[in-house]
Amino acid sequence: MGNTWGRAFRVTTWGESHGAAIGAVVDGCPPRLPLSEADIQPDLDRRAPGQSTLVTQRKESDTVKIMSGVFDGVTLGTPISLVIPNEDMRPGDYREVQEKYRPSHADYTYDAKYGVRDWRGGGRTSARETAGRVAAGAIARKLLATRWNVVVVAWVSKVGTLVADCDPERVTRDEVDLTPIRCPDLAVAERMIAAVEAARKDGDSLGGAVTCAVRGCPPGWGEPVFDRLEADLAKAVLSLPASKGFEIGSGFAGTDLRGSEHNDEFYMDADRVRTRTNRSGGTQGGITNGETIYFRVAFKPTATIMREQRTVSRDYEDTTITGRGRHDPCVLPRAVSMVEAMTTLVLADHALRHAAISGG
Amino acid sequence: MGNTWGRAFRVTTWGESHGAAIGAVVDGCPPRLPLSEADIQPDLDRRAPGQSTLVTQRKESDTVKIMSGVFDGVTLGTPISLVIPNEDMRPGDYREVQEKYRPSHADYTYDAKYGVRDWRGGGRTSARETAGRVAAGAIARKLLATRWNVVVVAWVSKVGTLVADCDPERVTRDEVDLTPIRCPDLAVAERMIAAVEAARKDGDSLGGAVTCAVRGCPPGWGEPVFDRLEADLAKAVLSLPASKGFEIGSGFAGTDLRGSEHNDEFYMDADRVRTRTNRSGGTQGGITNGETIYFRVAFKPTATIMREQRTVSRDYEDTTITGRGRHDPCVLPRAVSMVEAMTTLVLADHALRHAAISGG
Amino acid sequence: MGNTWGRAFRVTTWGESHGAAIGAVVDGCPPRLPLSEADIQPDLDRRAPGQSTLVTQRKESDTVKIMSGVFDGVTLGTPISLVIPNEDMRPGDYREVQEKYRPSHADYTYDAKYGVRDWRGGGRTSARETAGRVAAGAIARKLLATRWNVVVVAWVSKVGTLVADCDPERVTRDEVDLTPIRCPDLAVAERMIAAVEAARKDGDSLGGAVTCAVRGCPPGWGEPVFDRLEADLAKAVLSLPASKGFEIGSGFAGTDLRGSEHNDEFYMDADRVRTRTNRSGGTQGGITNGETIYFRVAFKPTATIMREQRTVSRDYEDTTITGRGRHDPCVLPRAVSMVEAMTTLVLADHALRHAAISGG
Amino acid sequence: MGNTWGRAFRVTTWGESHGAAIGAVVDGCPPRLPLSEADIQPDLDRRAPGQSTLVTQRKESDTVKIMSGVFDGVTLGTPISLVIPNEDMRPGDYREVQEKYRPSHADYTYDAKYGVRDWRGGGRTSARETAGRVAAGAIARKLLATRWNVVVVAWVSKVGTLVADCDPERVTRDEVDLTPIRCPDLAVAERMIAAVEAARKDGDSLGGAVTCAVRGCPPGWGEPVFDRLEADLAKAVLSLPASKGFEIGSGFAGTDLRGSEHNDEFYMDADRVRTRTNRSGGTQGGITNGETIYFRVAFKPTATIMREQRTVSRDYEDTTITGRGRHDPCVLPRAVSMVEAMTTLVLADHALRHAAISGG
Repeated sequence: MGNTWGRAFRVTTWGESHGAAIGAVVDGCPPRLPLSEADIQPDLDRRAPGQSTLVTQRKESDTVKIMSGVFDGVTLGTPISLVIPNEDMRPGDYREVQEKYRPSHADYTYDAKYGVRDWRGGGRTSARETAGRVAAGAIARKLLATRWNVVVVAWVSKVGTLVADCDPERVTRDEVDLTPIRCPDLAVAERMIAAVEAARKDGDSLGGAVTCAVRGCPPGWGEPVFDRLEADLAKAVLSLPASKGFEIGSGFAGTDLRGSEHNDEFYMDADRVRTRTNRSGGTQGGITNGETIYFRVAFKPTATIMREQRTVSRDYEDTTITGRGRHDPCVLPRAVSMVEAMTTLVLADHALRHAAISGG
Repeated sequence: MGNTWGRAFRVTTWGESHGAAIGAVVDGCPPRLPLSEADIQPDLDRRAPGQSTLVTQRKESDTVKIMSGVFDGVTLGTPISLVIPNEDMRPGDYREVQEKYRPSHADYTYDAKYGVRDWRGGGRTSARETAGRVAAGAIARKLLATRWNVVVVAWVSKVGTLVADCDPERVTRDEVDLTPIRCPDLAVAERMIAAVEAARKDGDSLGGAVTCAVRGCPPGWGEPVFDRLEADLAKAVLSLPASKGFEIGSGFAGTDLRGSEHNDEFYMDADRVRTRTNRSGGTQGGITNGETIYFRVAFKPTATIMREQRTVSRDYEDTTITGRGRHDPCVLPRAVSMVEAMTTLVLADHALRHAAISGG
Repeated sequence: MGNTWGRAFRVTTWGESHGAAIGAVVDGCPPRLPLSEADIQPDLDRRAPGQSTLVTQRKESDTVKIMSGVFDGVTLGTPISLVIPNEDMRPGDYREVQEKYRPSHADYTYDAKYGVRDWRGGGRTSARETAGRVAAGAIARKLLATRWNVVVVAWVSKVGTLVADCDPERVTRDEVDLTPIRCPDLAVAERMIAAVEAARKDGDSLGGAVTCAVRGCPPGWGEPVFDRLEADLAKAVLSLPASKGFEIGSGFAGTDLRGSEHNDEFYMDADRVRTRTNRSGGTQGGITNGETIYFRVAFKPTATIMREQRTVSRDYEDTTITGRGRHDPCVLPRAVSMVEAMTTLVLADHALRHAAISGG
Repeated sequence: MGNTWGRAFRVTTWGESHGAAIGAVVDGCPPRLPLSEADIQPDLDRRAPGQSTLVTQRKESDTVKIMSGVFDGVTLGTPISLVIPNEDMRPGDYREVQEKYRPSHADYTYDAKYGVRDWRGGGRTSARETAGRVAAGAIARKLLATRWNVVVVAWVSKVGTLVADCDPERVTRDEVDLTPIRCPDLAVAERMIAAVEAARKDGDSLGGAVTCAVRGCPPGWGEPVFDRLEADLAKAVLSLPASKGFEIGSGFAGTDLRGSEHNDEFYMDADRVRTRTNRSGGTQGGITNGETIYFRVAFKPTATIMREQRTVSRDYEDTTITGRGRHDPCVLPRAVSMVEAMTTLVLADHALRHAAISGG
């Protein structure tokens, strides 16, 4: 269980890292949306491994095929099945993992939960699983853009101790993609790249943060109480591998302020209600207020490192393990598309849920 | 929509701040759990207003009544309906709110979403709504304690810029309740109290953070992919009024580290698999590993302040508004029980979901 | 679990027959629908016991109170909590039931499932539970009538072996309520009443059928595959106490025909697509076609009879039991409002689900 | 939406009749269940077209491939993705359907709902869609048999006006498969076969009924109120193409009886609680009582017939249409495996839901 996201725009993903394929089924996408593989592939390419020396060298073309739900170039309103074959499988790299639990990976917890696990490349816990999310997210992105002109853009805002400064009101995807580290603050980007290269040479890894902005949301999306928009966003990004934190608007730093400093005063901008500041981050009471939504996601340093570490075996003996195979010295550049995907899934779902009561 | 939490242990809350009552319905609680109002009332009392000068002076006894689902002192397996009458209602305090949108409140967004709102005390967006969650959470707490010996304890770890240092492995509820600020680091607690008093005198407000620890979870709770335990915890606490961030384990600070510094190595502690450090915060791959779960929640400074602020009216005119009525200069002491409640709801739900496949 | 109906228009019911109260929470009702207790009470009165000698003499005023979700006479879009206090409780009537399992009741199966049960009046398995559904259904009915001009009307079409002949295109609620048996075929109604009186005098009971018609549904409601409209209608009515069967359109009798006799040919009626016959019963492929929906529900004879029957005790001994207390010699007249309620819940849910993708 | 079944054992199906493939994703299957394609293929073969002259001559090998969720011969607890390629596609047969609505098919209602449809072979409304359900059902069947020794068997009990008489306590799958009509009453089976052949020669079609028995269910499965076991069974089978009715136990015929004739008296059979009769059909109050569950499903005569019928075009003109292509003169023999599949999905789901509260 747990492999389905959403109520009105629902996505179910499946697949192990070294099985035959991975995929996703999207149910609830409205009919008559123009859609083809060409709408999905670019997002997958941004997530794919092997794009630069900053990320894992696993070679996967990650070619998506739409198996159902699209006819004559438009969606039918029926489930859209997406399949991405697995290609560059080297299970031999993982023999040691069959017998030993990698520190800060999910090998042990899967065994604890299920009494069985696919040890080849982490199976279902591999970051590869997110390809299905990214493919589904591309459909949500198209729906949001086509019907509501909503733009979702994420970027790397922190690598190790290096922090970028970017304006959520302005960052574009083109700017993000200028460098392989996907940080649009180019001066900082250069230093981030050097830091990742250094970590890679050390057989070590780095963490960081991704910031995501959503521009163009109409007021009124989100549900009160348990399904507040920020609650669903938090869940969405904390469901990503290696994520450790979420903050929206002023976030943790905002707790330093007094209410008189923190509140977002309203004013009329022609006939539109606006706020003078946006410490709320685009929602109030869990519902969008029309301002830009922005939030930050923490990702821990990649758990796989090329060093010897102490651990225990499946037979409950103390032992050691040394990282092998291909890995990401820093997951951040690839996490950008994952964060965008989860964000679009949340928004598409809430847009349709809101339509159910508002007729729009 | 959005008023229901959980799949296996499900809670639906209802009620406006100044309506006849608020309440919750709990569906899925296993049968034969000993339960009475006496198990619930203490948690409600901790959440209630009027406990000290640090929080709102609204007088509510918050007396809960169990309307169904319990017979001869034990649960029946049928829905448990909880009702808490509203008592100290002064809607007159809120007349101005009927016409004007309070900054950083949900008045505007509710109007944007629904075209109507109960302006008396914030209606459904009032922190009062959380009384239903706390009542339901007390049942989850009892279930977790009775069946699995799981302990959930939260405390105030930050008020304004004051930060406490407490050990998630050891903090007890008794220690938390030693001071009205609910911070078990007593030296810091004293300064926090002074800071809140100062803010109150200024008609201003403070934010801060709550840290929560869960001790005694067996390995194996949580679901892969979208319903990771930390994802549900993040959603749970971000659904609380005024929350702005969530971080588990090493959180945002952990992104400064390299993988070799961050990984939690495994070792055998007699016949139990343990980790030498706990930067993961008790879960790996979204599934509990048997270590203590701990996470931190950011709460913004209370939006209601006793000062004039600029805003707009319901008729879309620029205007000003000044806080009136009773309010919390700092929501943190009361947020402790809200965070605990949401945490117990998440855990009880995952415990039962895991039982569905494991028979336990 | 199992106490919630619907996805977009969601109803959760709670309460035992002889507890403090029963009730329902409605989540998802769109905002700004005019609503008060006066919209709900008439449907409850039609379901209530004690209306005539044909049904149980339990005296319950079944007075509903709206506890939340309505303000200034309109719905808020927040959960609507409905509470109906229990009044005429005589648990003493049920002492024998505490020790013995009544034949064809749920006493044994509840004990088997939960290991505990509220034996007072059947607890949660009492037909009294349906009062919460009827109250919620009245809100759905108002929504359907106000927004889409949809009319739902049900009637008793069979009692014992007596079968009425009524036209689903024309029957009105006024006609249904002309007699206490709620059969608008007045000649048959008279004989039905006599049959029920005879059964009552014998301490025995009768079953029968309710037919329900839905007029005015626009084409397009219902979902493909698992959530076909007729599938949800079937589930809805089979969830009612004592129901044993469901058939839509031509139903079981239609299986005697050949396709050439059974198919509903289309024709243009001005600018509207119509069918010449309506053996489909208003849906094709699970989606409404604009014709009248009609279906029939079988209800078994009431299990409670005033006669001695063989059974077993809670201690697994063979024994006998004799019906006591107040009971319905024929549940059919009261089942009419239950069937209508479940039908309106299904339709309101599908109407809102359809709106999510169609904007209407 | 509407393409997912179940809460604890969840199945999502996808695919159009003449698209690239159809398939299903099963989420919630417990880990460590031995499983391979060989467990699934036999059920698909029973559903497949082309088995005899009684059913459609479309040639589909319906070869299933497990894409995920199984490793080293056992389930992983992760989603099991099943893909069945489409092979014998002749969309040319359906050109007329592109422009005209077939009577008693879903062409019109899909256009009404979605404003677009895949007209090739009925797209998603084709009976071909049920192959995904049957594949998923085979996994549920294996789970039920392995863990609880539950046996599910269905058979054709009525074709046109010919009715078979079989004992739900005894019918075996081998007996069912003795004849291509799948009626274990061999004398009646012979006449049924002749009737279908006659209808086929006339270019016409027949309806009928399938009866299904479930033996070996422990007491306690099913949920009160809305999710009664019989309610879910009714929904499950009414979600099948061409189904028009459902009755459990005594069903519609039972409404002729008085309570004293209808009630199932309990008795002790050694240490087991049994009922002397089984008019309830294996459940009371929606929960299994340990007796055999049996129910009957009505299927209308196949809508596709080889005759000219009046209808309307997509441009809203009166016109005529004549059946072409391959079709089933009688869907009943193939419906047997569909009814079994939906029944196993219902039971597996309720078994796991019950385990969540009972630990078993």
